[in-house]
Amino acid sequence: MIYEQLINPKSIVVVGASDNILKPGGSVLHNLATGTFDKDLYVVNARGGSIQGIKAYVSIEEIPGTDLAIISVPANQCLQTVEYLAKEKGVKAFIVFSAGFSEESEDGAKLEKELVDIVNKAGAIMIGPNCSGFFNTKHQSIFTRPVPNLDPQGVDIISSSGGTITYIIESAMRIGLRFNSAWSIGNAAQVGVEDILEFLDNEFDPKSSPKIKLLYLEKIADPDRFLNHSASLIRKGCKIAAIKSGSSSSGSRAASSHTGAIASSDSAVEALFRKAGIIRCYSREELANVAAVLTLKEIKGRNLVIITQAGGPAVILTDALSKGNIDVPEMDKELAAELKGHLLPGAAVSNPIDIIGTGTGEHMAICIDFCEKRFKEIDGIAVIYGNPGVSNVAEAYEILDQKIRTCRLPIYPILPSVIAASQEMDNFVKKGHVNFTDEYALANALSKVVSWTPPSVGKMEDIKIDIPRIRNIIDNAPDGYIDSDTIRELFDAAGIPQVQELVTNDKDKAINFANKIGYPIVAKCVGPVHKSDVGGVVLNIRSDNHLALEFDRLMKIPAATEVMIQPMLSGQELFVGAKYESKYGHIVLCGLGGIFVEILKDVASGLAPLSFNEASSMIRSLRAYKIIQGTRGQKGLNEKLFTEIIVRLSILLRFATEIKEMDINPLLANEEKVIAVDARIRIEKLQVIP
Amino acid sequence: MIYEQLINPKSIVVVGASDNILKPGGSVLHNLATGTFDKDLYVVNARGGSIQGIKAYVSIEEIPGTDLAIISVPANQCLQTVEYLAKEKGVKAFIVFSAGFSEESEDGAKLEKELVDIVNKAGAIMIGPNCSGFFNTKHQSIFTRPVPNLDPQGVDIISSSGGTITYIIESAMRIGLRFNSAWSIGNAAQVGVEDILEFLDNEFDPKSSPKIKLLYLEKIADPDRFLNHSASLIRKGCKIAAIKSGSSSSGSRAASSHTGAIASSDSAVEALFRKAGIIRCYSREELANVAAVLTLKEIKGRNLVIITQAGGPAVILTDALSKGNIDVPEMDKELAAELKGHLLPGAAVSNPIDIIGTGTGEHMAICIDFCEKRFKEIDGIAVIYGNPGVSNVAEAYEILDQKIRTCRLPIYPILPSVIAASQEMDNFVKKGHVNFTDEYALANALSKVVSWTPPSVGKMEDIKIDIPRIRNIIDNAPDGYIDSDTIRELFDAAGIPQVQELVTNDKDKAINFANKIGYPIVAKCVGPVHKSDVGGVVLNIRSDNHLALEFDRLMKIPAATEVMIQPMLSGQELFVGAKYESKYGHIVLCGLGGIFVEILKDVASGLAPLSFNEASSMIRSLRAYKIIQGTRGQKGLNEKLFTEIIVRLSILLRFATEIKEMDINPLLANEEKVIAVDARIRIEKLQVIP
Repeated sequence: MIYEQLINPKSIVVVGASDNILKPGGSVLHNLATGTFDKDLYVVNARGGSIQGIKAYVSIEEIPGTDLAIISVPANQCLQTVEYLAKEKGVKAFIVFSAGFSEESEDGAKLEKELVDIVNKAGAIMIGPNCSGFFNTKHQSIFTRPVPNLDPQGVDIISSSGGTITYIIESAMRIGLRFNSAWSIGNAAQVGVEDILEFLDNEFDPKSSPKIKLLYLEKIADPDRFLNHSASLIRKGCKIAAIKSGSSSSGSRAASSHTGAIASSDSAVEALFRKAGIIRCYSREELANVAAVLTLKEIKGRNLVIITQAGGPAVILTDALSKGNIDVPEMDKELAAELKGHLLPGAAVSNPIDIIGTGTGEHMAICIDFCEKRFKEIDGIAVIYGNPGVSNVAEAYEILDQKIRTCRLPIYPILPSVIAASQEMDNFVKKGHVNFTDEYALANALSKVVSWTPPSVGKMEDIKIDIPRIRNIIDNAPDGYIDSDTIRELFDAAGIPQVQELVTNDKDKAINFANKIGYPIVAKCVGPVHKSDVGGVVLNIRSDNHLALEFDRLMKIPAATEVMIQPMLSGQELFVGAKYESKYGHIVLCGLGGIFVEILKDVASGLAPLSFNEASSMIRSLRAYKIIQGTRGQKGLNEKLFTEIIVRLSILLRFATEIKEMDINPLLANEEKVIAVDARIRIEKLQVIP
Repeated sequence: MIYEQLINPKSIVVVGASDNILKPGGSVLHNLATGTFDKDLYVVNARGGSIQGIKAYVSIEEIPGTDLAIISVPANQCLQTVEYLAKEKGVKAFIVFSAGFSEESEDGAKLEKELVDIVNKAGAIMIGPNCSGFFNTKHQSIFTRPVPNLDPQGVDIISSSGGTITYIIESAMRIGLRFNSAWSIGNAAQVGVEDILEFLDNEFDPKSSPKIKLLYLEKIADPDRFLNHSASLIRKGCKIAAIKSGSSSSGSRAASSHTGAIASSDSAVEALFRKAGIIRCYSREELANVAAVLTLKEIKGRNLVIITQAGGPAVILTDALSKGNIDVPEMDKELAAELKGHLLPGAAVSNPIDIIGTGTGEHMAICIDFCEKRFKEIDGIAVIYGNPGVSNVAEAYEILDQKIRTCRLPIYPILPSVIAASQEMDNFVKKGHVNFTDEYALANALSKVVSWTPPSVGKMEDIKIDIPRIRNIIDNAPDGYIDSDTIRELFDAAGIPQVQELVTNDKDKAINFANKIGYPIVAKCVGPVHKSDVGGVVLNIRSDNHLALEFDRLMKIPAATEVMIQPMLSGQELFVGAKYESKYGHIVLCGLGGIFVEILKDVASGLAPLSFNEASSMIRSLRAYKIIQGTRGQKGLNEKLFTEIIVRLSILLRFATEIKEMDINPLLANEEKVIAVDARIRIEKLQVIP
């Protein structure tokens, strides 16, 4: 639905243009007139005469037919203006700056709906209202400044917030990023982020289209379309990094009063981004740094060499990389000795390679070549080169420029002398390079990029699950929490391993079962609600005698009707759960059980159905992942089986959308087994049609 | 030991001066000659003639008597130069740029030692070698550039690394920090960070001395002196923020090859900083942002109001503050409605307060005044004001300048238009203000500052502990791991609560004891090393019958000699441990037990003896602190008692330095009790004299 008239208009009219460039209608005209647009530009202002040196039409009636109209008039004049332009002047694309719509009041929301109706009826498109506009290499119909360096291979940015888009662009320009297009979607009354992603996806040409997309979002109105098009773009070779703000409860309140965003849960956003393969960021500078990493050659592993002219920043960088699970491997001693021979006395070569303060660009070049050709274990090179006052920085940056172009490995330039070498840095950036001024920020961005996992949309793992049986069970289950036998059947159909158990009031049967499953066992009385409080749970029973003793005792507890026997399992508690969220479907959650989920909230989320890769990335993203992995001193858990259980559950859920919430808590895991011990499932079949 | 001749010299000689300002000897002369030094400046160069327009002496023999000498000659000429100048020309302060000493080789280390001997014999002081120099408001004897804005109320910075000091200064200048002095200590052969802190401490004048100190360190040679003087400065009203790099294992290798730093464990550094009240940072930009926060009025609580002209950054900031445990409380509805009446239509007022893009400096001023006077619950104000192209930024920044000076609350300016408003930002900063260009970075820095705890050096909590008895026990204990009875006695003397237990081979005694302490109980066989593997541990025994049954079984296990009876305690496992580290003393560690300490390494550290405040800050700094706190759904643990046990243990250790390592693992805790269940203590009395 995004038309040529927006992307490459033959004519543009600014309605509400002004001589005052501190007004949106003045500012946009200034940007257009001084930018790259070289076709017909019309200006409407009731005063007539000339505006910023351009002849002004006193009314819209007088202008010729036009492709794109920029509307900067009060909200109450928007409707008739847009209607007239669409009907009488053939305008097919509108950018509406005007505020006073749904972001302000209910009346405004009504007005906005009417505006959208008019635009839809005319078969036109509209960016806004309450937006700051749009620019690409053809025209700069945006009222904010600065308009950055335009580059058809630059970044595309889409933002819910007009101020934010500018401030992100400024953070990004400062480190050398260039832009192809910027979309400030404002209230997104008609064109939303989903439409723009769809447009970029449909128009994508692997040879000519730019590859990096940045998003700033406060809401995601249509998660399905968002997911499909972002994943599709990424599969075609794009990278997308995004801030979705409003994740804290106060932040959510702030977003709601800013763009009327209705909170989706943060776990839903995390799940969506994971499935799409979007890198999530939390600040403007982080977003810019991640984008800068993405402009460089792709890094294929997690080993970095650091070439530096100053020891301190290299130590800081090494610490920060290590925190982000990127290694700075030591260079083989013989190799290091050989390299040292080419450097100044005092140089250190173990990695970081310190060419020392008086080390020149030539020394840096020697190290880059040497590392590229001889240091087999590395995947990328970070170069720290500032201007401490005793080296020819301009020369060094020219050499660095060449090396970045020719080296087969990605080179990350850290040029910290933002003041003493600002001129040289500007020149370096003008050649098309990015620059990381702070090594810690680079490490953080790089760590996000190397942890990226590809999209996994549209796949369903080929895994044996009895779907007809699942449907049959669900169709026959009543609303509400389902009973434990039904849960057992469901899990059986999905291939989720469950603890063995027997419920009986016959002591001999209990003893036989205990011998069958093997001691130690657990016995619980069935009947009383709070079993533990009445001494109704006995752990670690190790003999027939002891079981007989406890069986009699348990049956004497008031309200006890039967005794449940289970094997005594030991292991780490894990947790898998899911909730159904409108527009998203099932958000599957996993983590360690007990306090990890209840208090520490260390939970990863993914959208059902999950692939093995996705479930695996969920597990690896847990803060407590080390416990699942194990360490030298402690055995890990069966991660593969845990992954499989998450995948199986997610497929079960995909075919049982009536399940509105559920959890398996705990799953008990050790290095061999992962077994569901207890579960709750709530079904809700009657759905209110929204 | 820092002399007036370094701080305020009457004459300076540059030995090894050059016309080439890319050489240290040329660069320092340039900085000196173009800086604030207005007394006698001599230059020595064997060529004679004039250097940078200053008459050059051909040898050091020819110069007049001098206070301070800057040495920029090859390492092998340093000794005789320094010796001659000290003896014949009365030089009392040396700054030695020359490299090729201990950082390079063992021969270099010998040379360095000789150099220090010469300086010491002459009763002089020396900064370096292998440093980039020193500057203050009187003279700029440093060869790196830029030399920043000098301000007697500016920041003092001390750094192990010459390059890093410059790059930190550049990061800091960019956001508006000013400097009083910079000390690049290089190899710190004679003057180390401890000496400089001592000097600043001794000379401190509450009226005239600057208050903010920044440190970049790769080693701490004398933790005791470092601690005493930094804590003393902080008690006098200073704030210190520091990077100690080399905390990862690769980072430690990097630091060692950079400045020959011998690793102190990261927990020792954490403990030291906690005791001193130093704010720990991890990157240059973080250090600069923390320093910038410290230049503003002190924030007295954790509630912030955000006044913004753009919604997005305010939402990002709100999320980030929430992550850092700083609140953005909602404004009372009536109050908000009143404020809204003063703002443009479309303004949002719940907090964040969004004056919208066209909101002016006047609107901002109205909000600041309103929040200061009427919004009782807040402790600070963040103002986000950029230049999206439609407001008079210069005017707004003039108003902001006034408000920062007059408002009783601290105001944090976030001016994000680093490109579009760079001129206006420069003007704002020139008035003496700092600026946070990224709201996320401000949130992070602010969170560090509000979490600051004051120094707790030299205090010993007044708490009943039987020191003579502790000494008596330790004096009579042999080297190695001490037995459980001795541990019991020690903890008893220190007032650390322990689990009750009985070890016996008499079944009746066991049953009597079980009845005394109350069922359920735990029985363990004594003798076999791996009790659990041979079924030697029985949990949750609930009756005489069951105990009798298990007692007989346990006694039949091969190697079992006795049975230990303990109450069956349930609760969260906690951990307290300590290790003795050379020069630091006892590092006390605490955390949650089990996987939290073994795998997640979620451990906080402090230096013995600990105050209640300090132990409490250790507990609060745990990532898993929420588990100790509890939440609505889960009861917390007895934090006060846990704190007390840590304090008691730390005092015990202070009087038992023979304990080289120990742990209590687990301590079992619930909302009422915290009880030591098991402990190991290793004593080592014969100490090798270093």
